[in-house]
Amino acid sequence: MVDKSFYLAKNDVTLAQAAEVMSATLCAKERGGEIIGDIATMGSATEADICFFYDRKSKEKAAAIKAKACVTTAALQEFVPPHVAVLLSDNPKEAFIKLNEFMYAEKKAAPQIDASAKIAATAKIGKDCTIGAYAVIGENVEIGDNCIIGANTVIGHDCRIGNNCRIDNNVSIDYSIIGNNCYIFTGARIGQDGFGFQLINGQHHRIPQLGRVIIGNDVEVGANACIDRGALDDTVIGDGSRIDNLVQIAHNDKIGRGCVIVSQVGIAGSCTLGDYVVLGGQVGLADHLNIGSGVQIAAQSGVMRDIEAGAVVMGSPCVPFKDFMRQVAFLQKNSKK
Amino acid sequence: MVDKSFYLAKNDVTLAQAAEVMSATLCAKERGGEIIGDIATMGSATEADICFFYDRKSKEKAAAIKAKACVTTAALQEFVPPHVAVLLSDNPKEAFIKLNEFMYAEKKAAPQIDASAKIAATAKIGKDCTIGAYAVIGENVEIGDNCIIGANTVIGHDCRIGNNCRIDNNVSIDYSIIGNNCYIFTGARIGQDGFGFQLINGQHHRIPQLGRVIIGNDVEVGANACIDRGALDDTVIGDGSRIDNLVQIAHNDKIGRGCVIVSQVGIAGSCTLGDYVVLGGQVGLADHLNIGSGVQIAAQSGVMRDIEAGAVVMGSPCVPFKDFMRQVAFLQKNSKK
Amino acid sequence: MVDKSFYLAKNDVTLAQAAEVMSATLCAKERGGEIIGDIATMGSATEADICFFYDRKSKEKAAAIKAKACVTTAALQEFVPPHVAVLLSDNPKEAFIKLNEFMYAEKKAAPQIDASAKIAATAKIGKDCTIGAYAVIGENVEIGDNCIIGANTVIGHDCRIGNNCRIDNNVSIDYSIIGNNCYIFTGARIGQDGFGFQLINGQHHRIPQLGRVIIGNDVEVGANACIDRGALDDTVIGDGSRIDNLVQIAHNDKIGRGCVIVSQVGIAGSCTLGDYVVLGGQVGLADHLNIGSGVQIAAQSGVMRDIEAGAVVMGSPCVPFKDFMRQVAFLQKNSKK
Repeated sequence: MVDKSFYLAKNDVTLAQAAEVMSATLCAKERGGEIIGDIATMGSATEADICFFYDRKSKEKAAAIKAKACVTTAALQEFVPPHVAVLLSDNPKEAFIKLNEFMYAEKKAAPQIDASAKIAATAKIGKDCTIGAYAVIGENVEIGDNCIIGANTVIGHDCRIGNNCRIDNNVSIDYSIIGNNCYIFTGARIGQDGFGFQLINGQHHRIPQLGRVIIGNDVEVGANACIDRGALDDTVIGDGSRIDNLVQIAHNDKIGRGCVIVSQVGIAGSCTLGDYVVLGGQVGLADHLNIGSGVQIAAQSGVMRDIEAGAVVMGSPCVPFKDFMRQVAFLQKNSKK
Repeated sequence: MVDKSFYLAKNDVTLAQAAEVMSATLCAKERGGEIIGDIATMGSATEADICFFYDRKSKEKAAAIKAKACVTTAALQEFVPPHVAVLLSDNPKEAFIKLNEFMYAEKKAAPQIDASAKIAATAKIGKDCTIGAYAVIGENVEIGDNCIIGANTVIGHDCRIGNNCRIDNNVSIDYSIIGNNCYIFTGARIGQDGFGFQLINGQHHRIPQLGRVIIGNDVEVGANACIDRGALDDTVIGDGSRIDNLVQIAHNDKIGRGCVIVSQVGIAGSCTLGDYVVLGGQVGLADHLNIGSGVQIAAQSGVMRDIEAGAVVMGSPCVPFKDFMRQVAFLQKNSKK
Repeated sequence: MVDKSFYLAKNDVTLAQAAEVMSATLCAKERGGEIIGDIATMGSATEADICFFYDRKSKEKAAAIKAKACVTTAALQEFVPPHVAVLLSDNPKEAFIKLNEFMYAEKKAAPQIDASAKIAATAKIGKDCTIGAYAVIGENVEIGDNCIIGANTVIGHDCRIGNNCRIDNNVSIDYSIIGNNCYIFTGARIGQDGFGFQLINGQHHRIPQLGRVIIGNDVEVGANACIDRGALDDTVIGDGSRIDNLVQIAHNDKIGRGCVIVSQVGIAGSCTLGDYVVLGGQVGLADHLNIGSGVQIAAQSGVMRDIEAGAVVMGSPCVPFKDFMRQVAFLQKNSKK
């Protein structure tokens, strides 16, 4: 039930069109002319809507579908009631994204630089950019084409941002170089000093932080997440990585490509993550660790040692996933004696 | 010792007046004309002040009270020194709130819309609202009566906010509908995209997030907390719930009425919480969980399974509270062998 | 490799000068006239650069140094290749800070109050302050000399800030008194209401929060960190303490001098920490605890009881460090049977 006061929606999409958009096969070809109301979940879809069914665990929900149509796989088709028009897809999740993008869009105003945005004379702004009210863009900043810079966002001197980036409202960026197609959410803090100091005569003396934050292409940084700049080296976020809300990434961290870092993870300084590493929510990493490519670390785990590529770990301190489950079972069994 | 440079205070409240405000009974009626200096804690109250004593554990502190007066229960009265004027109350905590609200107030300027606030021509602002400097209010936004919108806060297009709400400084709100009497603290981020994507050919493809955030009446959202909007469904916060600072609430979560979610909790997507659920600080919930009404989850717990109504759990992964304590005792005892 | 588009750098510093700045001894006096390119890490330093070597664990890295010069101790000198000019220092870390501060600086514009900053007529601003665009300074605020107030930052009525403070962009400060030489990073929230309420007839009734936040001298508060003001008492941060990003400090907490509170720590209300307490990342403290001076609490630990001065603890619930390690070993060994 997409709320049309917030989103733009196409009102006249037929099942045949939808099948084409999704590269899916409409089984009952004679229903191709029927109009789709909304995309909805299996449980909430009304008789006008289309829903998606791709998880065998939901087969009971599938039996109760009221929707006009359902996108599913050949293997799951049998669980869908006969009144529902089935659209077969090898990958219903991907199909879901495609139909979504076809039917709906966020409202987007024409590119415009608000008169109240304070843009330094030496800054260079690309074509077709939107800059919100009271945004502040520092000296020598370079912003590419088709970017959106939110209201009340502050971008410090000399930062460089690529094309097609969206920097939301109330963001702070300093000492950073950001690639193309990045999405920085509200309240993110990027490029502030790392947490470095040296105790001298009972006083924590600040260690100058003279590095940068380098963010690749197609990176997301969540709301209120923090990425500190490097001390001498840079803090680096690889292409395609996804960083959720309230994550902390400390100075000199190197995050590989395609990593997924779930909300409230904390990574201490000078860690190196390979590619496609997945960190569950609230995971903590000690400093100077090497985490191999493809490693998966379960939520709330604490990591004190390097982890080899491909490992799946859990616990604080973390151990291989199977060992953790054994420990849990052992404790549960023996503590009851 | 309330600092009168920050707060407004009545200087001439007598013990008799205070008793009336609190529906308490002043034992020594002859002292009813004495003026109260300040409300203070048992330990810091001077001879001019009034303090509150409601926890038997503090009976030693009570014996050392220097205050002019003390609000306490009949059961605890005996621990208060004789020089102190006792005011008896069935509920001193409630009495504390009442006297506080009677004696003190935050300074509040007359309602005023700052000339620098950027308010879209299509936005509707209710009566007696205050809108701070450099706030940005988008197209079609509707704000009720008696609201305060902080400085540098940004409210995106089509959002609706009820009456008597206070949205603090530096807040971001998008795609949200908020009820009456809500208090959104500084730096909160509400309504940004959920963390959803699908791996297609090695690339994390964003799943469009087309839901909303629906917040009931009398809800608090803490400083720098994040509430993502739903993907298709909405993210919902029930009436009377309290969300502390730095909490993460993910897309499609449904939080019941009267829940208390302490600082730094993280709730993954599509969870459903009943009413009056209490989550201690830094608790983490996996996605798609059902947590029954009245459940209490101790701080730092990790939840991977549904929890039945009324349960009290602890640990990561969490177990019933008593089991957790047994596990702790078992480990402590046996690891020392 | 400091990026000179972001930082100011001296280009003509000789080894002799560097030795003097660091109070170090250049072994090969005849090389005193050589110019230093950059300060760099052992691994990344080119033949023009100077690096620092102070950790015996890095002796293999030391053998591979390509740098022109290396600052190290007499004890470690033997691991440095002969082509490298050695500068002997008793404390290379301290020397690193000194040379950094001598060679590099952040770009700093001349003090200037931006015309768009909204400063109340009753506010007092000291000498040589910089106030950024769209900053909002409330009634009766007092700010000392040589302060920097960031863009879009909001400082509420009656707050007082000492000399030489730097308050970054997008910060919110209310009901606070801040000393000299403090550094408040982007997005920090200081002085909002504590999380206090009383359940009355099924409704969480707010307990008025009438205290302040008192921050000493030389304190750092990290990006997006939150410090709630006290309820009646104040929340207090002692001189020289360091608070990292995304930390939560609740109402009435008293933090001693020189404490180090790493990212994502959460301290519940009314705790008292002594001096030089160290809390690792993601540590959680229950309310009303006393933590003695010099206590060290390992990352992710959960604290439910008071801790005596000097203790080193770990785990959730935390135990003495050695006990924790024994528990981990016990579990690992016995769960595999």
